[in-house]
Amino acid sequence: QKGVVALVGAGPGDPELLTLKALRFLQEADVVLYDDLVSPRIVAMARRDAEKIPVGKRGYRPSCRQDHITAQLVALGLAGKKVVRLKGGDPMIFGRANEEIAALRAVGVRVEVVPGITAALGAAASLQMSLTERDKARRLQFITAHAHDGSLPDDMDWRALCDPRASSIVYMGVKTLQALASRLLAEGIDPTTPALLIERATQRDERVLAGTIESLPPLVAAAAPDGPCLVFIGAAFASPETETSKDSVIEAAL
Amino acid sequence: QKGVVALVGAGPGDPELLTLKALRFLQEADVVLYDDLVSPRIVAMARRDAEKIPVGKRGYRPSCRQDHITAQLVALGLAGKKVVRLKGGDPMIFGRANEEIAALRAVGVRVEVVPGITAALGAAASLQMSLTERDKARRLQFITAHAHDGSLPDDMDWRALCDPRASSIVYMGVKTLQALASRLLAEGIDPTTPALLIERATQRDERVLAGTIESLPPLVAAAAPDGPCLVFIGAAFASPETETSKDSVIEAAL
Repeated sequence: QKGVVALVGAGPGDPELLTLKALRFLQEADVVLYDDLVSPRIVAMARRDAEKIPVGKRGYRPSCRQDHITAQLVALGLAGKKVVRLKGGDPMIFGRANEEIAALRAVGVRVEVVPGITAALGAAASLQMSLTERDKARRLQFITAHAHDGSLPDDMDWRALCDPRASSIVYMGVKTLQALASRLLAEGIDPTTPALLIERATQRDERVLAGTIESLPPLVAAAAPDGPCLVFIGAAFASPETETSKDSVIEAAL
Repeated sequence: QKGVVALVGAGPGDPELLTLKALRFLQEADVVLYDDLVSPRIVAMARRDAEKIPVGKRGYRPSCRQDHITAQLVALGLAGKKVVRLKGGDPMIFGRANEEIAALRAVGVRVEVVPGITAALGAAASLQMSLTERDKARRLQFITAHAHDGSLPDDMDWRALCDPRASSIVYMGVKTLQALASRLLAEGIDPTTPALLIERATQRDERVLAGTIESLPPLVAAAAPDGPCLVFIGAAFASPETETSKDSVIEAAL
């Protein structure tokens, strides 16, 4: 009897932002494999007697790491286990779900996918700022700003990212923020375009830095965030607060 | 004593895709104002004795409708009620949250925002297809393809939408699908770009139509969907299934 493997979105950080379905899967699982970024408070929502396996240990090369995770999922599924693969945010954005799903299907293990609140939506709720706005921000785009080797990719659609009527959300973009901002400025983005950095969105120690695409990178370098971060870029992120003072936004977000 | 108004995301349709926080707010609310598109099964999760008010009745002009909803929220908040404004999907994408939040803040009523699973993520989970893929689909963009008057807007960033390495998700795009496809083809999109229509994503009667940006519009016109729909466009949506047959995708999704 084969098992079932569920790829489950753990949401942006706050355990209350799990879906009811994610909670049900967590409570039914024999084994939970969880990413580094998933909060211990969420892992603790699994059944007390479930086996809990941290994956994504640093020290592996990314390719080895993914192969190893996929192999674990396949082995557990073939052994008849109910498995939850718990991923930060949503499993279908900037993850490796396709590889895991393909490997499981190839051996006939049933797959389920449970969506999660992606970090950008968690942060928008926490900031109480819409990601889109009629007329002003009609296209919403998500990117990651690092290539396989961790540098800023050279071949992104820069014009799409400079569009004054789009909202751009950058996942995993702290290390390359200065490079991204310099490139966007060189490609013609309005230097007064509002930009925010949100660290640990929806968690108790959420932190927000507000500026423009030009002023944000040095602010971020000085603040040296060490939690997961998002960068928001676009006209929609000029709230009355960001226009007056950085501190009032930070306060509003806490 | 003033009340509190929470803008709460009801998710894509399946009641189990509400967050734990959304359920808590629903169960604490004195009054629930809900959109047309929110499933009755979700409205029924509110407290039995809560007042439940449908908003978004057809027949109003959109501007009147929004002003009326905002006025109701303000009046209920000032009257000390705990109010939930229940919106399909997530409140911060393609909604009017900013206007509601500004009006409530102006009169000193406390606002909360609870994110929801946006329809695109619900559909991706249901289809078991990632929205992004390393190298192949690194930028994910969401648009609505109708202007104030319901027609296709003329001034979108067409080049950004034709980018072969982006995944594009169109909300509320059924009526203008033929116009959008024609325009993208005229602007140079590869005519073999995969395209899917997903109707009632995550609900029991979810339906999927699969084709290319060229072949999908007539398929959709023939099927005449009457539920809420999303259109997915991009290389990431060429699953093994869509390459072989439309029926197998439809089956996989049910």
